[in-house]
Amino acid sequence: MGRHIITLTTDFGTDSPYVAQMKGVICSINPRATIIDITHAISPQNVLAAALVLDEVCHRFPQDSIHVAVVDPGVGTRRALVAARVRERYYLLPDNGLLSHVVQREWPSQVIRLEAHQYWLGSVSATFHGRDILAPVAARLSLGLDPRDLGPPHRQLALLQVPVPTVFEQRLVGEVISTDSFGNLITNITAELLPSDWVGRRCAVCCGAAVVDGLQRTYRGGPLGATVALFGSSGRLEIAVVQGNAAIRLAAHPGDKVEVSW
Amino acid sequence: MGRHIITLTTDFGTDSPYVAQMKGVICSINPRATIIDITHAISPQNVLAAALVLDEVCHRFPQDSIHVAVVDPGVGTRRALVAARVRERYYLLPDNGLLSHVVQREWPSQVIRLEAHQYWLGSVSATFHGRDILAPVAARLSLGLDPRDLGPPHRQLALLQVPVPTVFEQRLVGEVISTDSFGNLITNITAELLPSDWVGRRCAVCCGAAVVDGLQRTYRGGPLGATVALFGSSGRLEIAVVQGNAAIRLAAHPGDKVEVSW
Amino acid sequence: MGRHIITLTTDFGTDSPYVAQMKGVICSINPRATIIDITHAISPQNVLAAALVLDEVCHRFPQDSIHVAVVDPGVGTRRALVAARVRERYYLLPDNGLLSHVVQREWPSQVIRLEAHQYWLGSVSATFHGRDILAPVAARLSLGLDPRDLGPPHRQLALLQVPVPTVFEQRLVGEVISTDSFGNLITNITAELLPSDWVGRRCAVCCGAAVVDGLQRTYRGGPLGATVALFGSSGRLEIAVVQGNAAIRLAAHPGDKVEVSW
Repeated sequence: MGRHIITLTTDFGTDSPYVAQMKGVICSINPRATIIDITHAISPQNVLAAALVLDEVCHRFPQDSIHVAVVDPGVGTRRALVAARVRERYYLLPDNGLLSHVVQREWPSQVIRLEAHQYWLGSVSATFHGRDILAPVAARLSLGLDPRDLGPPHRQLALLQVPVPTVFEQRLVGEVISTDSFGNLITNITAELLPSDWVGRRCAVCCGAAVVDGLQRTYRGGPLGATVALFGSSGRLEIAVVQGNAAIRLAAHPGDKVEVSW
Repeated sequence: MGRHIITLTTDFGTDSPYVAQMKGVICSINPRATIIDITHAISPQNVLAAALVLDEVCHRFPQDSIHVAVVDPGVGTRRALVAARVRERYYLLPDNGLLSHVVQREWPSQVIRLEAHQYWLGSVSATFHGRDILAPVAARLSLGLDPRDLGPPHRQLALLQVPVPTVFEQRLVGEVISTDSFGNLITNITAELLPSDWVGRRCAVCCGAAVVDGLQRTYRGGPLGATVALFGSSGRLEIAVVQGNAAIRLAAHPGDKVEVSW
Repeated sequence: MGRHIITLTTDFGTDSPYVAQMKGVICSINPRATIIDITHAISPQNVLAAALVLDEVCHRFPQDSIHVAVVDPGVGTRRALVAARVRERYYLLPDNGLLSHVVQREWPSQVIRLEAHQYWLGSVSATFHGRDILAPVAARLSLGLDPRDLGPPHRQLALLQVPVPTVFEQRLVGEVISTDSFGNLITNITAELLPSDWVGRRCAVCCGAAVVDGLQRTYRGGPLGATVALFGSSGRLEIAVVQGNAAIRLAAHPGDKVEVSW
């Protein structure tokens, strides 16, 4: 496969020229790199939202892909920049919690603190380390540089508290963690948390004033306009409106509680 | 040319991580594929709008390009997924009308119903066939797989009614079918519908309360702020405002009637 | 490095299918070209905003990259299309001021007026020269075509007035020239305009009713919510709000005056 695939995840805003500056730096070092945008629409400085996206998307890419993430409210302060190897992929990012979701699946086999200036741009700004440090380091990794040349081992990863559902006897309480462009409400509730025979069981899903009976298999699992609950493509419980927008209908946001009882 | 170019057209929203999930799957199977976004800004579940974009854009790509479209309100229901070959290009999409415009130019020389599970992801969700079926199939086609290996012939394509202008003796009535980011109103009226000597003729174009005299050659064909009509780069009659925004000025939307009289 | 990298900068709007039409034309001529979006979010017909982006971003790409820019309010009128070589890069664009910032760093070593129709699409619309002329010319340049084959030398570049700060004895007055997605206000004031020992000096930065004392090194150079001034990653003075949005806080826009006194 090789390491020539480099992905970018930032809060720069779609079509921000900052993204293209990073691509220019990468291409100047490795013109054959394949650069793929994951998203640049993370809300400004929302580290946890980016951490979730990295977890859901990066493992879809081939092994040895290089995933660069720049949601970096602490740029220019003392926070470290690191290269972490998790599940045979490289993550290049500020050590500010961006790996909080990824490491829940598997702990990094290697974490390097980026300190070897010779692999950075000649002149490093105080405000754009994505362009001046992470982009050139990604390009050099993609050309085969040994990650151990990038700096010393980094012992302590900064991690953020990831909201986890609370499980009671016949119910659990989780929360909405993101919404997609269809208005589907995506929760932190995964199927393993439900009784193993949940498929055939009666259950109720509550979010705000909405109460949904039972789980469907698809977004079409009810009449037009009905509110439904289902396990979506990320393996998470979602609340949706058939051919409609649940986020608007329920006026729901990330952080809102979702209860499942059975 | 080879089949290594894969384009994506969806209603996932610009910068949705769903798009990157598809790209990850494609790269994992064919890391050398060239993936190009056509648009992800189709309004949710608007099959006909996507059908129009496919028709206007895909034929600009080289022969043997693979065009994946995911506007799929029926995902998980009984609708088929198909591979259609039209004008030497492959279209991979749900059979829900996405080809309605393309087939008006030329009927597919081949339509296959995707049924050969061995070319799909190992685990197929009920809600994201774009990632779990179309993306891996596109990647395998790009590596040279024979489309006949993907499933049996598909006999009946689902097509939607494409709005067609009504032609009278000295006038015709069409409609706005899309607007672009400049606010230009793009109609379903093409030059062939007008008298063959239309270039020199007097004519009037009406849309709502606006009446435009004559046809111009460019968006600059009148004083600043004037409403003008012209045949645009897609060969369709457009209504524009010189250096302004016709959609706002005329408060016009797709579906609004446009009359040309001569 | 080779000339296979082609960048695109337009005012078509993010995800406009017009962009993909250009990419299709490029791929049809050179399927191995690497096409990179700089931005498509230039506000409609804002030539000077695009000129600034070209200046800030293009030099980050490798030498011999081909930079196509389409902000073209005069499409179909008499304005020329040109290929300009500046700092070992090619710029393909309408001659309407898009190079106004780039040429301030270095004058083009070569400017060609695009007149050799044989390198254009067979049928050229009056309204989309980006697709019908610039895209095929870029693709052919990327395949190694000699720029002198594209047309005759072009003697006179159209340039726009670039706003320049006015320097007084102990102060200077510049202006906001753009804002980014974080709401940072980016000015036309660069460090060379300040006294050479500005780093340690006291100074005040005023924008509207806001008065900021001193210059910081990073966006974190003050308590949460403080308004700060700093030289950003483009080498320009910026006004920012720590973890906030200066454009909203100060209700500031491009064109607003910014005064620095010391």
